Formats: sequence, structure tokens, C-alpha cells
Amino acid sequence: MFIAETNIRIHYALTDQMGFVYHGHYAQFYEIGRTEAIRSLGYTYKDIELMGVIMPVIETRFKFLLPAKYDDLITVKTILKEMPENHRIVFFGEIYNQNRQLINVGEVTMYFMQIDGMKKIPMPGELKVKIENHFH
Amino acid sequence: MFIAETNIRIHYALTDQMGFVYHGHYAQFYEIGRTEAIRSLGYTYKDIELMGVIMPVIETRFKFLLPAKYDDLITVKTILKEMPENHRIVFFGEIYNQNRQLINVGEVTMYFMQIDGMKKIPMPGELKVKIENHFH
Amino acid sequence: MFIAETNIRIHYALTDQMGFVYHGHYAQFYEIGRTEAIRSLGYTYKDIELMGVIMPVIETRFKFLLPAKYDDLITVKTILKEMPENHRIVFFGEIYNQNRQLINVGEVTMYFMQIDGMKKIPMPGELKVKIENHFH
Amino acid sequence: MFIAETNIRIHYALTDQMGFVYHGHYAQFYEIGRTEAIRSLGYTYKDIELMGVIMPVIETRFKFLLPAKYDDLITVKTILKEMPENHRIVFFGEIYNQNRQLINVGEVTMYFMQIDGMKKIPMPGELKVKIENHFH
Repeated sequence: MFIAETNIRIHYALTDQMGFVYHGHYAQFYEIGRTEAIRSLGYTYKDIELMGVIMPVIETRFKFLLPAKYDDLITVKTILKEMPENHRIVFFGEIYNQNRQLINVGEVTMYFMQIDGMKKIPMPGELKVKIENHFH
Repeated sequence: MFIAETNIRIHYALTDQMGFVYHGHYAQFYEIGRTEAIRSLGYTYKDIELMGVIMPVIETRFKFLLPAKYDDLITVKTILKEMPENHRIVFFGEIYNQNRQLINVGEVTMYFMQIDGMKKIPMPGELKVKIENHFH
Repeated sequence: MFIAETNIRIHYALTDQMGFVYHGHYAQFYEIGRTEAIRSLGYTYKDIELMGVIMPVIETRFKFLLPAKYDDLITVKTILKEMPENHRIVFFGEIYNQNRQLINVGEVTMYFMQIDGMKKIPMPGELKVKIENHFH
Repeated sequence: MFIAETNIRIHYALTDQMGFVYHGHYAQFYEIGRTEAIRSLGYTYKDIELMGVIMPVIETRFKFLLPAKYDDLITVKTILKEMPENHRIVFFGEIYNQNRQLINVGEVTMYFMQIDGMKKIPMPGELKVKIENHFH
């Protein structure tokens, strides 16, 4: 299992007139979580795209347990429960507020695809090597 | 069953460097779909909030079948399969592009809540009356 | 002078906890205004990009006179006061709410650039011909 | 003069299909800059709102010198050149990329207003005291 955490400060643009963070913005929080998780491996999603590989999002599921509010400092926990065996990778996520309350749980499924021809491919070897260490 | 359709033109701000609409923006498309569905009943979500009722989003599930692109004219189909029996309402959705290809399916669960005290309540009577006609 | 108008309905995602539309979103309203202004000429900004030309924004100035609110139906007026003489084009804009109150005035300067090599170029001939009719 | 700096990592949602950060998102960067500038004084914008004071944006001017790109680590420099003498405050800003290239300059004018009655008021005393130290 591979787990990484990153913090995000809620700025004004993310709030809506209900006084909470608009539900559509959580996709961005999980995106930032994944990006920083990959960076913590000594790799970047930018590197992946420079190799000609993209990772389109295929499915998302989010549960909104408690609202996030303006100026909250939330923590996004990104969890890879198992090594992907083919072109499909599933990231689980949990978001906590500064009081350590669990406010959101999510699941984001992505594919590895070659930009050139938009063909599904397995996880690039360079990334696989870095993640595998966390599964032994 | 209650079904309503609304069109949305994809503007530049919604695209990302993959050349597609960023996945996080679909929540907004479904929101616009719901809002216009309610308006087609001769009611507005704004009216609901003016009555002191809010409808926070509790859960979302989106499947991304095909990408939406810049300047696409998409159609959001909002579907209420059954009348809510308590504070919980589930909206199903389908998004099509201008070639009538199904590009996204979604499910958004919301609660009816009284702003004052943040208490769960059943669907407001005024709205219920308007929707019920579609279920007979 | 070339003038075009387009309407935009304010959805929830655009509001912030002040109960108004977040100021950063007006750039999108003016973008939609420009896009529909070009479409009204029988041309699209998408066509421009397909020709290998992009129009990056170089400068923006917005004055916020009155707030826009949730569910408002705003009208964006896009005004081209003079034909561009080189790579530089300035769009003026005015935004009105449904009560015909002027709520925002804006000025957006863009360049015409060739994607290939990122070189400044004059307005593409096809677009020029369509706009020139409005200046005689 | 009061100057503060804060860093922002560009995530995917902020890019557009031109491969750059969408121009409309810079308003958020300057917002984050202002917020962190105030926090560096031992105060928060949230505190200001809790006192019943809001700071609506009245005017913005941004010049886009160079594009920001995905995964860039930009630095927002927030500059208060002079103490506000009435309800009006002007924040100047500069944004640099990780190569220390100046990519954007901005100017954001805001008013201090009492939420209750939406009346213009001078800068709250608590905030004034904290900033004044930087002007002697």
C-alpha cells in the first residue's frame, strides 16, 4: 500500500453562497493529492506526460460527510491499495479538516493511455519501479 | 419519472491541457441540469433557498465515457426516477455531445435541509406538488 | 463598430460566501461574450485555432460596479470599437443584470499569434473580412 | 511599504487547451497572495469577515507577460505601497515563475464595507495597527 498526504488551504474562490466549499471543487483536491503523492516518489505527473502518456479520469465517486469552509487547512490522504495490473489505476482518498475530522472520501479511476493514438497501455515502467517499493 | 434537458456550450476556461474538458467541471454541468429541470416545473432552486431550505450534495458518481471538447454543445439530461420519500433525493444524469454520443453518466444525491439549525427535512410541499404530476 | 450580446445564467458554482459572483469569474463571462460575438459573424474561435492561430490574453481591466447574484440572467455586450491594425485587438465589454443595471465594464487585450513558433501575426484575413462589414 | 510572498503550485485544473494557465485564474493567485500577506501579519481575512466587514473587489488590472504552465511553482508578491486613508485599499502584485521570470503584474482595488447595511467604512483598527508597523 502506498499512502501520501498533502495540505491545501481553502481560498475564497472555492466557497459558494451556502458558505461551504462547492462540491465540484473536491475533484481538484484529489488531483492535487495524487500529484503530490507521485512527486513524493521522486517523479512527477508532468514527467509522465512528457513521455507521451496521459491519465484521463474514467470514474469518480465522492462522499461528502462534512463541509469544508473558507480558510480551512484540509489534508488530502491519497491511497493506492494495490498495484495496477493493466491500464487501470484506482486512487482512494480521504480528506480531513484541521480538527482531524474526516470530511470526504473519494475514489478516482484513471487509465494510462498513449497520447499518440489514444491507446490504453500498462503503467510506465519508471513509475512502476518507484511505487513497487511500497508494496513489499 | 421526471426528465428535463438543457444545453451547455463548452467555453475555453473549462478545457485543460489534455485538450478536453477537465473532469472536475462535470459537477457544474449536472448542477446546471438540475437547476433548469426545476425551472421547467415553474419553480426555482433560488425559491427553495429563499424558503430557508438548502440542498447540500451528499454523494456524486460520474463515469467519463468520452471527452467533451472546446466549443462542443452538450446536452444534459436530468432524470428523477422516483419521488423522494424523505430528506434524500437522487438525480440521475446523462450528458450527450452534439453528435448524440453519450459522453457521461452521473448520479448526484442531495439532502433537503433547513438552513436554520441544519436539520434534515422532507421535500418542501410546493416543489413536491409540481413534481408529482410527472409521476402519474 | 461591431457589437454583439449574449446572455449567461449565473449558476451556484460561480457564487462565493459573500453571496455574490466571485470577481475572478468575470473573465469567463467576457470570454463567452467574445466567443459568441465571433460566432454571430458566421465564424468561430475554434476555426481560428484550427488554422493554427491562438489569441492569448495580454491584459485585462475590469470594474465591478454592482454584484451579480445566483440565478441572475446577465447580458454581456461585446464591443469592438476599431479594427485592429496589427497583431493587437482590444475588446470592450459591458455586463448588465436582468434589471438592465450596468454591473461591470471590462477591457480585454489579446494578440493574434501563430501557434507554430509563437510569432505575432495580423488578424487572419477570413475573420477580418467578416468584421470589416461592420465598420462601413 | 508592506510586502509579502507566497508560493502556489499550478495544478491541472488551472491549465487550458492552449497548454497555459487560463488568464481568468490569476485573480485567484492574487487573492491567495493577499490572504497570506494578511496572515503573515498575525491576522486573517476570515477574522475580518467575522467582525462583520467584507472587502469586495472594485477593480482589477492584470498584465500577462509570460504564460504560467502546468506544475510551475509560482511566487506571488503582494505589495501595499501606501496605507489606505479611507475605505479604499489598493494591492499591487507581481507573479514570478520558478526561473524568477516576472510573468504577471496586477493591481486589485477593494473597499472595506460593513456587511450590515453594505456601508463603506475605513480599514478596521485591528488590521491598521498591524500594517502600520511596516510603514515606519
